[in-house]
Amino acid sequence: MTTDRIELDEPSQAVLREARRLLRRKERKEIGEFLVEGRQAVREALKAPGVVKWLFIRWASAHDNVDLVELARESDVPVYAVSEQNLATMSDTVTPQGVIAVARNIDVSLSEVLGTKRKDPSKEKKKHRRKDVGLIVICAQIRDPGNAGTVIRCADAFGADAVILSTDSVEVYNPKTVRASVGSIFHLPIVTGVDLEQAIDACRAAGLQVFATDGEAGVDLSDLDAELSRPTAWVMGNEAWGLPSEHLALADNTVAVPIYGHAESLNLATAAAICLYASASAQRASN
Amino acid sequence: MTTDRIELDEPSQAVLREARRLLRRKERKEIGEFLVEGRQAVREALKAPGVVKWLFIRWASAHDNVDLVELARESDVPVYAVSEQNLATMSDTVTPQGVIAVARNIDVSLSEVLGTKRKDPSKEKKKHRRKDVGLIVICAQIRDPGNAGTVIRCADAFGADAVILSTDSVEVYNPKTVRASVGSIFHLPIVTGVDLEQAIDACRAAGLQVFATDGEAGVDLSDLDAELSRPTAWVMGNEAWGLPSEHLALADNTVAVPIYGHAESLNLATAAAICLYASASAQRASN
Repeated sequence: MTTDRIELDEPSQAVLREARRLLRRKERKEIGEFLVEGRQAVREALKAPGVVKWLFIRWASAHDNVDLVELARESDVPVYAVSEQNLATMSDTVTPQGVIAVARNIDVSLSEVLGTKRKDPSKEKKKHRRKDVGLIVICAQIRDPGNAGTVIRCADAFGADAVILSTDSVEVYNPKTVRASVGSIFHLPIVTGVDLEQAIDACRAAGLQVFATDGEAGVDLSDLDAELSRPTAWVMGNEAWGLPSEHLALADNTVAVPIYGHAESLNLATAAAICLYASASAQRASN
Repeated sequence: MTTDRIELDEPSQAVLREARRLLRRKERKEIGEFLVEGRQAVREALKAPGVVKWLFIRWASAHDNVDLVELARESDVPVYAVSEQNLATMSDTVTPQGVIAVARNIDVSLSEVLGTKRKDPSKEKKKHRRKDVGLIVICAQIRDPGNAGTVIRCADAFGADAVILSTDSVEVYNPKTVRASVGSIFHLPIVTGVDLEQAIDACRAAGLQVFATDGEAGVDLSDLDAELSRPTAWVMGNEAWGLPSEHLALADNTVAVPIYGHAESLNLATAAAICLYASASAQRASN
């Protein structure tokens, strides 16, 4: 297809078929790829080396996405023009911005983020070479993809070193999670499918204190002071039932975001944002 | 309808018809009533005197909602049993909890919340009798009902004295706003349809400093100290374009929630939560 300024290929049926398969979780798992929708998320994916495999742009939107086409071509990522109908078949939503990318899985292992000191640094992936880890978020059984994506976005905003999604949490490659993260899943290491206890042990071994959030906790976030400036892993529980007592017991401390009014609770992403902001601000103030 | 423990009437066609009309904004405005869905929101509505007009419960869910039936009967609120099909006709979503209430509008005027000192206190509504106002949230052109509801929930959680939705903001009685507030709209005074400048003037006249949030602002929230403990009105802008410069100029100060990582921005509700938490904690620490 040719427009005034840019020339784009049309995808083969095989390419379209593979992209569509990624709408199903089982297929994503098998193939090791996922879909990224929307300009901002796609741009962030394209900036991450080696992540994007294909870029699809709706014919009618090509001119609004010249910057993305250029970014893709700089990295030799094939760019395909597709019809509105074809774009719709690889999306679980309406895609007003007309941009979808197929990306390769980006999750890393726990040891890449929190490896023991004995590990040979030359063997670590360059992208996430280990540095001193100061702030980690562990999502324990978070089930709503929008919540998980928003927590990842907050973790990114407040400079967390990684997000760990423990076993039984929502899939990070769910299109709704990817969308809610607004590109943040490409900004910091994401670890998935780890047992909660194992994740907490690894954080502690790396020198982090472990705080679990719990609305009923005796310790108020606003009463913490010097503790907040220390390296910390925050454990956030399920949106409906929080953290069960056996998980709370794994933490060094359970912490509540204080509620001064009549609301029964905060939503999970709000509580996470406040805890992470409090840690990040305290850590920066003490440096 | 009779079950083992509770007896419920069936609604007349006229009652059903009126409830269904409330799905449309125009009709809500005309009638001055709105729909409340879900156990928690309905319970909070029932606790607010004189707010609930009718309570509808799905036949099959009657036994799971005995507490709500009792609460309604204590206040002489008619309770009706309806079929799954009839319930669906008065909902814009699936209602897994099988509970919907028709409520009377709850918004109050700006002067009820921030009236001048000359006003005769005996004429004010008992429910929201004016006290010293320390924390107000002004939503300026917030368009997403979920965001508005979440901001109201946060305002409630952090003990704000009122939420003001300025002209061009989403309707507070939109079912999605009501749902996202999880009952909080019944906990604190809500003012709607006020011009932004008028709202800011009223806050300032009541002795509040006015802070407007802006990602580009020169002042970081984490750099504020003594200022945070003073009575404050926070102005939150639109989710996409924030606050235009002419609105920022109305504030005493523009404040950014600092971003330490690579995320381009925070979502509106997250930024609001952090600002309100910071104010509420500082105000309490200084008392």
